[in-house]
Amino acid sequence: MPEKRDVVVLGVGMTKFGRHPDKSLVDLFAEAFFEAFEESNIELKDIEALYFGNFVGEMTDGAANLAGFMADEIGLKGIPATRYEGACASSSVAFREAVRAVAAGYYDCVAVGGSERLASAGTAIGTRALATAVDGVYEITAGLTFPGVFALAARLYSKVYDIPLEKLREMMAYVSIKNHKYGAINPKAQFYGKYGDLKVEDVLNSRMICSPLTLFDCCPMTDGASAAIIASADFAKEVLDKEPVYVRGTGQASAGSLFRQKEELIKAIPRRKSSEMAFKEAGLTPKDIDFVEIHDCFTIAEIIALEAMGFFEYGKACSAAMEGITWVDGDLPVNPDGGLIGKGHPVGATGVSQIYTVVKILRGEYKHNPVKDAETAMTDTLGGDFGTLVNIILSVHRR
Amino acid sequence: MPEKRDVVVLGVGMTKFGRHPDKSLVDLFAEAFFEAFEESNIELKDIEALYFGNFVGEMTDGAANLAGFMADEIGLKGIPATRYEGACASSSVAFREAVRAVAAGYYDCVAVGGSERLASAGTAIGTRALATAVDGVYEITAGLTFPGVFALAARLYSKVYDIPLEKLREMMAYVSIKNHKYGAINPKAQFYGKYGDLKVEDVLNSRMICSPLTLFDCCPMTDGASAAIIASADFAKEVLDKEPVYVRGTGQASAGSLFRQKEELIKAIPRRKSSEMAFKEAGLTPKDIDFVEIHDCFTIAEIIALEAMGFFEYGKACSAAMEGITWVDGDLPVNPDGGLIGKGHPVGATGVSQIYTVVKILRGEYKHNPVKDAETAMTDTLGGDFGTLVNIILSVHRR
Repeated sequence: MPEKRDVVVLGVGMTKFGRHPDKSLVDLFAEAFFEAFEESNIELKDIEALYFGNFVGEMTDGAANLAGFMADEIGLKGIPATRYEGACASSSVAFREAVRAVAAGYYDCVAVGGSERLASAGTAIGTRALATAVDGVYEITAGLTFPGVFALAARLYSKVYDIPLEKLREMMAYVSIKNHKYGAINPKAQFYGKYGDLKVEDVLNSRMICSPLTLFDCCPMTDGASAAIIASADFAKEVLDKEPVYVRGTGQASAGSLFRQKEELIKAIPRRKSSEMAFKEAGLTPKDIDFVEIHDCFTIAEIIALEAMGFFEYGKACSAAMEGITWVDGDLPVNPDGGLIGKGHPVGATGVSQIYTVVKILRGEYKHNPVKDAETAMTDTLGGDFGTLVNIILSVHRR
Repeated sequence: MPEKRDVVVLGVGMTKFGRHPDKSLVDLFAEAFFEAFEESNIELKDIEALYFGNFVGEMTDGAANLAGFMADEIGLKGIPATRYEGACASSSVAFREAVRAVAAGYYDCVAVGGSERLASAGTAIGTRALATAVDGVYEITAGLTFPGVFALAARLYSKVYDIPLEKLREMMAYVSIKNHKYGAINPKAQFYGKYGDLKVEDVLNSRMICSPLTLFDCCPMTDGASAAIIASADFAKEVLDKEPVYVRGTGQASAGSLFRQKEELIKAIPRRKSSEMAFKEAGLTPKDIDFVEIHDCFTIAEIIALEAMGFFEYGKACSAAMEGITWVDGDLPVNPDGGLIGKGHPVGATGVSQIYTVVKILRGEYKHNPVKDAETAMTDTLGGDFGTLVNIILSVHRR
C-alpha cells in the first residue's frame, strides 16, 4: 500500500446534550464546530472538506442532503461536504473516512462531526425514526424496535451463558448506576445533575420498557451535535500549541438483518472484526488500552461490547461494573463521560462525542472525571443491530 | 501527496428503471450488483468494501442504515459497508470515495452502487421525500419543491440573459425531445418505447407543473438500482478480459441553501468548482470530452450544467439541443441514454447509472445508441439545489 501519514485531532467540540427545540440541525452543528475550531488554532480557510454524520434528519426535520448546508453555515462555502449515515455510527464512519483521506494525503486538514434532533422530534417520531436502523422490510413490520432488539439480546445472553435472568438484571443495573453517576457530573450531559445516586432497586423497579430492560437500562432521546478538526501530524506541528492526540487505528465492519445473525447477536461479530482491524492498524492489543468509550445504548450493550472488543471473554463482562472493574478507578474505565445512558444519544453526533471525551481526557483537560495516567483509549460505535460498526484508537503516542 | 494508483471500472450493472413495487431496496441493488459482478470476472471474496448511495430509504421504505444489509444480501457479510447520502448525487459521492480509497491503496477491489424506490412510494410521499434535498427548515416550509427550484432557475435564466421566456421554453423543449428520444430506444429506461417522437408543441402543451416547466420538462419518479465494481489498474490487469475504462478525474463541491445562492443559482458555482477539480485531476479540458452524462432533472438543468462545466459560455447553452449540438451526431452528445428525463431518476442510483452508460459506450457495447469514436466522457450529478455536486471523468486512455 502507498505510504500513509500520521493523523492527529487538533480540536474537539460538542453542544450540551439534551433538548434543543429552538435550534436546527445546522445551528447545533455550528455550535459544536466553533468550539472545536477555537481550540484548533487554525484559520477557516485551512479546512478543506467536511465529513458529516446524521442519521434521520429526513424524518425529524424534513432535512436530507445536509452536509453542504452545514459547510455553508460555518463559513466553508463550496468545499466538498459529504453526509454519512450508518445509524448510531454515522459520525464515527465520517470520522474514519476523514482520517483515511488525510492519511492518504488528499487533505491536510478537515472538519468532521454530527448533528441530530431526536428529543425535539418527540417519542413517537423518534421511535419510528430509530427503528429505521434495523431491517425496514421484515423486522420493523414485525414490531421490532430497539429496546426489543436488546431485550432479545439480554435474554439470549442469560440463556447461552447460563446466568439467571434476575442475576443478569442486577449486574446490568450496575452499568446503569455507573453511567448515570458519570453523566450526572458531566456538564455536557443530558442528565447533568440527575440520577447520580441510583441504587440497584431504582434500576430494577423503574418502568419496564421491554422486558427485561427497564427505563434506567435505556439511553434517552437526545438533541445535540459534536465536531472535531483533524489534520496530518505535519500540519499539526505548524499550528498546535499543545501536545497532539494521534489517531492510531480505525476499524469498520457490517452485518445483515437480525434474523440472519441469529445466535451471533451476543457475539457481535462485526464488532470483533472492526476492533481487530483497529488494533492491527494501531499495532496494539486490548492490554494497551487505558479506557474505552462504548456504545451503551442499553446496559446489556456495554457488556456485549466489552466482550467482542476483546477486553473480556464471551460471557464474562456481565459482572464488570458490579465488581468495579469498569469504573474510573478500576482496571478498565468504561464511559467516563456517562456514555449514551448518562450523557445522552443524539444518534448522528454520538460517535464524535466519544472522540471529544477521549481527547479531553488524554489531554488532561477532563477535570471533573479524569482517568489517571491515561495515554491510549478506544471508542466503539454501533449502528443499528450491528449493521454498522466502527472502532477508533487514539493515543498521545505516535506510532 | 503520497503516490496514488490508477483506478479502473471492471464491470457495471443496472436494473431496468421504472416501477418495481414488488422489489425491496435490497432486491433491486442485488440485481444491479450481480450484473456488474458477472462481467467483472472476479470472485466475491475479491470485493473488500461496499460504497452505497441511497437518498430517502427512511421515508419511502422505513429503511436507513442500509449498507450492511446490502453487503450481506450479495454475499459480502461483514465487510466495511458505508451509506452515502447527497440527495440525487448519493451514488456519485459513493463512487468518488470508492475511487479515492482504491487509488490510495486501502483496497484493491470494491463494489459501489445505489438503490431507490420513489415510483413505488407514490407521488405524495415521493414529492415530500424529494423536497428534503433542499433547505428543510426555511425553504420547504415556504412551499418550495423541486419543480419550484428549477422554475425559478428558468425564469432567472430568461431574465439575466435577456431571452424571452417563450423562446427559452421552445429551446428547453428540444432538450426534452432529445432525451425522450434516447430514452425511448434504451431498453433499461423507464420510458423505453414511449415518447420517442415528441414535437415542440407536445412539450409546450403538456400539463403545467410549475410555470414555465411542463410535464415533459421534468424527469419522472423512478424505482431502480445501479452498481459498479472498481479496482486498481494492477488488479484489473490480472482479471479483466477486455480493455479497461480508467477513472481519470473526480470532483466534488457543495452549496448552502437556495436563498444564500441567489443569482448564483444559474451559474451553478459548485458545479464549476467540481468540474474544474475533475479536469485538473484528469489533466484534461472540456475539449477532450467526447460526450457527457448530465443531471437533467429538468430541461433547464441540462442547459445550466453545460455552461457551468465549461462546455458553453454562460447564457449560450440554451440553444444547443435545438441546434443539434448535443445530439449523438452533434459536436457534444449529451445524455445518449435518455438522461434523467428519458431514462428515469431513481435518485440514489442515478449517479452510478451514468457511469454504466459511459462504460458501455466507451467499450463499444452500447449498440442501440453509440457515440462514434468516443474515448473520454464525463458525468455530472447534482444533489438538491447544488448542495452536493459531483463530476467524474472516464477514459479508455490511461493517463
